Amino acid sequence: MHSHPQPHATATSADPHANHTHTHSHRSVAEHRQAVRELLEPLAAGRSQRLPLVQALGRGLAETVTAPRSLPPFANSQMDGFAIRSGDVPDGGAELRVVAPVPAGASPAALQPGTAAPIMTGAMVPAGADAVVPVERAVPAAFPAPGEEAAVWLPPAAAGTFIRDAGSDIEAGERALAAGTFLGPGQLGLLAALGLADVLVHRPPAVLLVTTGDEVVEPGEPLEAGKIYDANGTLLETALRQAGLAVVRAGISTDNPAELRSLLRSHTAAVDLIVTTGGVSKGAYEVVRQAMDGQDVAFQHVAMQPGGPQGLGTFDGVPLLGFPGNPVSCLVSFEMFLRPVLSELFGSPHPRTVIRARLAQPLTSPAGKHQIRRGTLLPDGTVRLEGGESSHLVRALAQSNALVHVPVGVSALAEGAEVEVWML
Amino acid sequence: MHSHPQPHATATSADPHANHTHTHSHRSVAEHRQAVRELLEPLAAGRSQRLPLVQALGRGLAETVTAPRSLPPFANSQMDGFAIRSGDVPDGGAELRVVAPVPAGASPAALQPGTAAPIMTGAMVPAGADAVVPVERAVPAAFPAPGEEAAVWLPPAAAGTFIRDAGSDIEAGERALAAGTFLGPGQLGLLAALGLADVLVHRPPAVLLVTTGDEVVEPGEPLEAGKIYDANGTLLETALRQAGLAVVRAGISTDNPAELRSLLRSHTAAVDLIVTTGGVSKGAYEVVRQAMDGQDVAFQHVAMQPGGPQGLGTFDGVPLLGFPGNPVSCLVSFEMFLRPVLSELFGSPHPRTVIRARLAQPLTSPAGKHQIRRGTLLPDGTVRLEGGESSHLVRALAQSNALVHVPVGVSALAEGAEVEVWML
Repeated sequence: MHSHPQPHATATSADPHANHTHTHSHRSVAEHRQAVRELLEPLAAGRSQRLPLVQALGRGLAETVTAPRSLPPFANSQMDGFAIRSGDVPDGGAELRVVAPVPAGASPAALQPGTAAPIMTGAMVPAGADAVVPVERAVPAAFPAPGEEAAVWLPPAAAGTFIRDAGSDIEAGERALAAGTFLGPGQLGLLAALGLADVLVHRPPAVLLVTTGDEVVEPGEPLEAGKIYDANGTLLETALRQAGLAVVRAGISTDNPAELRSLLRSHTAAVDLIVTTGGVSKGAYEVVRQAMDGQDVAFQHVAMQPGGPQGLGTFDGVPLLGFPGNPVSCLVSFEMFLRPVLSELFGSPHPRTVIRARLAQPLTSPAGKHQIRRGTLLPDGTVRLEGGESSHLVRALAQSNALVHVPVGVSALAEGAEVEVWML
Repeated sequence: MHSHPQPHATATSADPHANHTHTHSHRSVAEHRQAVRELLEPLAAGRSQRLPLVQALGRGLAETVTAPRSLPPFANSQMDGFAIRSGDVPDGGAELRVVAPVPAGASPAALQPGTAAPIMTGAMVPAGADAVVPVERAVPAAFPAPGEEAAVWLPPAAAGTFIRDAGSDIEAGERALAAGTFLGPGQLGLLAALGLADVLVHRPPAVLLVTTGDEVVEPGEPLEAGKIYDANGTLLETALRQAGLAVVRAGISTDNPAELRSLLRSHTAAVDLIVTTGGVSKGAYEVVRQAMDGQDVAFQHVAMQPGGPQGLGTFDGVPLLGFPGNPVSCLVSFEMFLRPVLSELFGSPHPRTVIRARLAQPLTSPAGKHQIRRGTLLPDGTVRLEGGESSHLVRALAQSNALVHVPVGVSALAEGAEVEVWML
């Protein structure tokens, strides 16, 4: 944020830090995302760790997992019924002698010709048997007491009926999960079914989060005239935590560059990445720009609304992303740049669900920029915009469940136009 | 799971526990969900707690929050520019005397007629001023040094130009967030912007999770013939944790009802809810059914595939949900019954995103049941089914990102048919 107006500090004046920082003209969202990816890529190398399955929830898989065994591990019954040799029962049905039952978990003897074995759901099909007749189709439609001499009349069944073949879900040696897969309940359930107790996952980076601005006050503190509460700290810390990152909060920096540098240096040893908010605009006296004097940090304007001004580079060798100061710009910067790159590099967080939806109302957009509006996906499949395009509308953000994308080159869309929507 | 076949224990025989448990014929998904809701509703009362904002991430709001102040709290500038009285500048423009600048965070003096105040983005608009002219439109297009006597030529600007009015996001006294709102980064960011440091949230229930079956073995242990690894424990524990619940794992129960009862009783004091897997089918000797002898637990068949057999009631007064034994049935039971009821009662987890999509291939479904298939939403907006309808296909589940709903009354759908899809 600006705080000290100075002579000749205008949107078009020469950058006084041009010797030390790189200033570019507008670049595309894709170009900037690629730059973020290149900045963070080294963090993904050699940072994997082996965790018990439950602790791996929400992490990205750091190895490709091959099935050590088939699932199911053995042919088993899909029903409570009688295991038979299908050839023993002709079209008209047959009476077979009932042999010892097969409970789930048992390893049964081979089924002798002319016999039927009571078998429970999930129990191993005896060698020789190739079909199961559900008990309710038998006569009598009940299992005899174990040990009791009994016979049962059964209708015919084709080979394979009500049998789950070994390997019908996955065969030993097949790829179970690809490296980079996000590990949710379904994926971890598969690893458990395969008998694996732990798994190699990526270790996500630890992030130092610093908000800046002489006008910014911690929530809960008294608010003097002209000041505002810090929404960015809470917004971004929770977004980063939700994405699985460890977050170190350095509080709010003043607009004094020396103070910001000293604040950053008191934390850099403990983190892998720095995220700042505010102080990255084109004015010459923005605190993050000033504090990066002599550091390898570039400040550029991405062709995106909101969230155009972006800083990117390293501070004392630690990767740094400088997001703009308005809350909506912060969240959009996170969603457009940091979050997708984390998903790609670390397999976590899970990528946003992307859908196409129709606008519930018209909109306008600066043709030269990729506009990101906030909206709500409605039950009828349309998306309603929440608030206008202005980046200070945090209540409208709080009412939204989606980001609505208006690509470069589009200056207006009619009600009913189809747009890309990212579900938050 | 079945393990001990017994005389006359068939799918159609009378329930030997009919004196103690309630057996119903098929009931609808909506009816069962309502029953789950009634069972859990008492848990939501009087369980709220006040938490700092960041710790409230992922919780449901237990109070309606009214804005204690307006946002923005004061009219502020949307640009770096000059604050003016719009009436001072006629159509042809005017030269105005430049007065002291207004940095962000300052509380400026009123703007005197005929003057222009340099003002920074986010800074408070001085009393009397009603428009901001961006600095790049001024002549000269730069701010004079503070203290320097200067004048600036400015083009006209309508009242309100580049000013964010006080309360334009939210007015003091308006509802900021409704009780029951899921608290993600956007919502917590709004509370921070309003200056709130903590928030009253629901405390989610603690769940005891018990998997059952003589055939079930912990992942990592040796696997004898006829046994399978416990996928349900990992699958459900992570699903419950992802939904924000605290989970107590009691490990795997044998098929001995007395052992299951004793296992449950060793944990019930510490939990609010019990979830079991397996042993709820129609056979008379399923372990969960047997262990519930004398307890107020009903076993019924919900008109749903997979996951039809369901137990529901209380064990020693603690609410209990008995899910069926196959992994896919477990997850579908969780997604169809427990998760939506938690969202309703506790405001957390966030409800699943529901969309309409076209099938990438045809399907068949039992007309009398609500079928839930697993699938992947593809970039072209169609949904591809993963695996068949069988509930043991955990690899197919691991490849899915969505549940595909086929309502009661539908027995077949063609490729391209529109279906309801829940994003996982």
